[in-house]
Amino acid sequence: MALRPGSKTRARVWVISDGQERRRGDYLATEEPLEIRLVAGGATERLAVTMRTPGNDFELAAGFLHGEGILDGREALRGISYCTGPELDAAQQYNVVNVRLDGAAMPDLRGLERHFYTSSACGVCGKASLDAIELRGCAMPPPGPEVDAGGHNAVDKLVGWALLEGRLPFEDRILLVSGRASFEIMQKALAAGVPMVCAVSAPSSLAVDVAERFGMTLAGFLRGRRFNLYSGHDRVRLPAPAEQS
Amino acid sequence: MALRPGSKTRARVWVISDGQERRRGDYLATEEPLEIRLVAGGATERLAVTMRTPGNDFELAAGFLHGEGILDGREALRGISYCTGPELDAAQQYNVVNVRLDGAAMPDLRGLERHFYTSSACGVCGKASLDAIELRGCAMPPPGPEVDAGGHNAVDKLVGWALLEGRLPFEDRILLVSGRASFEIMQKALAAGVPMVCAVSAPSSLAVDVAERFGMTLAGFLRGRRFNLYSGHDRVRLPAPAEQS
Repeated sequence: MALRPGSKTRARVWVISDGQERRRGDYLATEEPLEIRLVAGGATERLAVTMRTPGNDFELAAGFLHGEGILDGREALRGISYCTGPELDAAQQYNVVNVRLDGAAMPDLRGLERHFYTSSACGVCGKASLDAIELRGCAMPPPGPEVDAGGHNAVDKLVGWALLEGRLPFEDRILLVSGRASFEIMQKALAAGVPMVCAVSAPSSLAVDVAERFGMTLAGFLRGRRFNLYSGHDRVRLPAPAEQS
Repeated sequence: MALRPGSKTRARVWVISDGQERRRGDYLATEEPLEIRLVAGGATERLAVTMRTPGNDFELAAGFLHGEGILDGREALRGISYCTGPELDAAQQYNVVNVRLDGAAMPDLRGLERHFYTSSACGVCGKASLDAIELRGCAMPPPGPEVDAGGHNAVDKLVGWALLEGRLPFEDRILLVSGRASFEIMQKALAAGVPMVCAVSAPSSLAVDVAERFGMTLAGFLRGRRFNLYSGHDRVRLPAPAEQS
């Protein structure tokens, strides 16, 4: 039986400040996929997969379905539970929620005009994404000293520009994002061949997982002359004491 | 022929500060849906709909497809253009992009593990969403003085909690978000019956469109004793001069 994931994940981090480094414990906001399944009239529909911080998962599922017009009120609800199907491995035990409706039939879902997150690998989407990237043969270049800062949070536009200009892969670039580093940011960076991502704010737990698994360098809280390093220390060289101003 | 949407949209706003108000012009970041279609081997697939600020749309489409592993490099590309099909009305003229691939066949899209934004009303999703909400009969309550502040950006969790507690609709509540007010935030607030949304940062153009169309009150840049009011002035009462401290 898997442990229920908490909203925070423990991590070890290098704190690098003014050319000095030290190691300390830290907490990351947990990021995990949640699949929402709808059960009604003897049928089950896999509706949506969303990345979320675990906690209040049943409320999240109910609120999502309400926002989509599928669930009007609690009268229509028979129950909400985690899915414990035998096809789910232990790590996904708390990442799939079944919402059971009281009606005799599955609601008509075709009329929905809202977008859904969908996935062909429901229930294991986060892990499956990592596997899919690996199968596509994404690889990180060896560490090198020549890197420039660049990029903003419109990562698709940036990567698309580079592709159209014939400049991919971005092996000698750093992706700098002004907010957090999420799973999605890391996945896009990896697909573009970017070996290093720096965020002004915090990374999520799954962002660090991606960085570790694919040998990427991930820095967060990049402010002034300090940052936290979560993965890929081999691409970072501290100045020798004589070089420091 | 529709005008190509810019990255900014002009708006009129009430600036309310220290109990005084004045009207002035303002610019909002434009928010519009972009549908990405893939054309290959004589077939067309509607792949994804994403909300975006217009500009660099071809780069966005190319970068998205690269991130999904569908487009390796520009060699595989025959061309990218806006769709000008007769089924698109003028307002959607620049919201649909066709990416034509050089191969003889449509790539196998089933193996993709990444989530997609999908929509059953491709090409008109933003507008169709508004229509769908209207058809579902969402209505705003009349303006009233009794409102409490509440909420954060995990809007689904909040609304789901209220639904499970039997507290919906949220007719006497304000939704306060710590970042921007997007189309999605407004849509969720509307579905929950929340008449007023306040954001610490800016609203998008489409957020203001939703607020105006459904009679919601939308405030932005809520800081200290000032805010900008974009829609729904009838729910805001300024203190009489004698009431001001």
